[in-house]
Amino acid sequence: MAVTSEKLDQKALDAEFAPKKMTIVAWSGTLDKAWPTLILATTAAASGMDVAVFFTFWGLRILQKNDKRLTGRNWKQRMLSIFNRGGSDHLGLSKLNMSGMGPMMMRQLAREHKVAEPTELLQMAQELGVKLWPCQMTMDLMGLRREDFIDGLPDVVGAATAIQRMSESDVNLFI
Amino acid sequence: MAVTSEKLDQKALDAEFAPKKMTIVAWSGTLDKAWPTLILATTAAASGMDVAVFFTFWGLRILQKNDKRLTGRNWKQRMLSIFNRGGSDHLGLSKLNMSGMGPMMMRQLAREHKVAEPTELLQMAQELGVKLWPCQMTMDLMGLRREDFIDGLPDVVGAATAIQRMSESDVNLFI
Amino acid sequence: MAVTSEKLDQKALDAEFAPKKMTIVAWSGTLDKAWPTLILATTAAASGMDVAVFFTFWGLRILQKNDKRLTGRNWKQRMLSIFNRGGSDHLGLSKLNMSGMGPMMMRQLAREHKVAEPTELLQMAQELGVKLWPCQMTMDLMGLRREDFIDGLPDVVGAATAIQRMSESDVNLFI
Repeated sequence: MAVTSEKLDQKALDAEFAPKKMTIVAWSGTLDKAWPTLILATTAAASGMDVAVFFTFWGLRILQKNDKRLTGRNWKQRMLSIFNRGGSDHLGLSKLNMSGMGPMMMRQLAREHKVAEPTELLQMAQELGVKLWPCQMTMDLMGLRREDFIDGLPDVVGAATAIQRMSESDVNLFI
Repeated sequence: MAVTSEKLDQKALDAEFAPKKMTIVAWSGTLDKAWPTLILATTAAASGMDVAVFFTFWGLRILQKNDKRLTGRNWKQRMLSIFNRGGSDHLGLSKLNMSGMGPMMMRQLAREHKVAEPTELLQMAQELGVKLWPCQMTMDLMGLRREDFIDGLPDVVGAATAIQRMSESDVNLFI
Repeated sequence: MAVTSEKLDQKALDAEFAPKKMTIVAWSGTLDKAWPTLILATTAAASGMDVAVFFTFWGLRILQKNDKRLTGRNWKQRMLSIFNRGGSDHLGLSKLNMSGMGPMMMRQLAREHKVAEPTELLQMAQELGVKLWPCQMTMDLMGLRREDFIDGLPDVVGAATAIQRMSESDVNLFI
């Protein structure tokens, strides 16, 4: 028992001094969801937490290069990329979108109140060491390639890795 | 103190070897949310985790039998069932739905890339021992009965049970 | 090692008897999301958990006084408050809204099945000691003031405080 106890103590001690972990599943590709995703991720990282964001489904579009207009390997995927434009500068709102007037107004309000743009927040996240993980399955489904994304991303990740990471995290959020 | 310490050690040891727990609140009834719900649930279960999914509000429709067209005990509930068709084969998209063309295209893309359909994933989840819990309050609200759901579901569950389970889980997600 | 071990034991003991913590990020301002947010918060609090809800972005509208029609300090913020009316009695549905007919029907069904209204649930939450936190950044962005909200709210909170709280919570949900 003594040995076990010491082992457990060691484990508890390690846990005591390890940074807390946050993992976000960024499923949504809208401006109003990209904001909380990236604000929570950067604020947590700035306060010393170890943060990973797994970009999946519509959320993967947030990582797309702003000047990549057309993506996909077949006509269905290309159509998707037209109806659902990617890039952190081009995200719409989940409601009050009003053909782009809503997002424009929101971005103006944000600028007036010194809330950073998603594009700046993405860069800040990279500088703070936040792991930005593109979802492998979504890349296949939507025909997105590594070169469609912003530079400096780490490896592409699957659901199993994201789950493993979540099972060790202190904070898990699906946004 | 020694006794307490041993007790805590025992507790820590038990926790050490118990499978990690994941609990998902499946609130959304769309194809694009059913996918992550069921992919995360089955992948986690396949890797040895103990997984429960609490299907509530719109999400409860995912558990509805595919050939049940009309449900509900009064005209309001029946109207709901018409405007919001249930069954994992009939789910729409949260955006780009385009009168069903969006979901159809998505399902085609999924087939081409070997992503399983929600109906297959539900079956896989059951085989892997994932607990699929229908929410009692939503059943009352929408007038859904046990016989409206796919076979083999365990008992109906209330919010208190779901919360108890979440408070013991390593990963909690609201999807 | 002995001292450390005792300290850790003490910590484990404290954790043993402290109430479990739940933290919800209430991002959505719709009736169908206000329900799970407030039902989970009140049910958890009633079962003895320590619960905090951080109301951010569209979700902040849930805390708005029902008789406050127009809010904001400039025309953009005022327009927002018109297109996106606040107050727990005025929330729309995320789908099947049908110009307000959907929410009306849902509220009728809820009454028939003794599901409490969001306004009652908010009051119950306050009585149960649930911390209802308005998000500072959203208040700035949308031009909302303390006097626009229901009475009895604690201090306004920023992302850093919400994250700190989540890192110590047993259950975290983004709704």
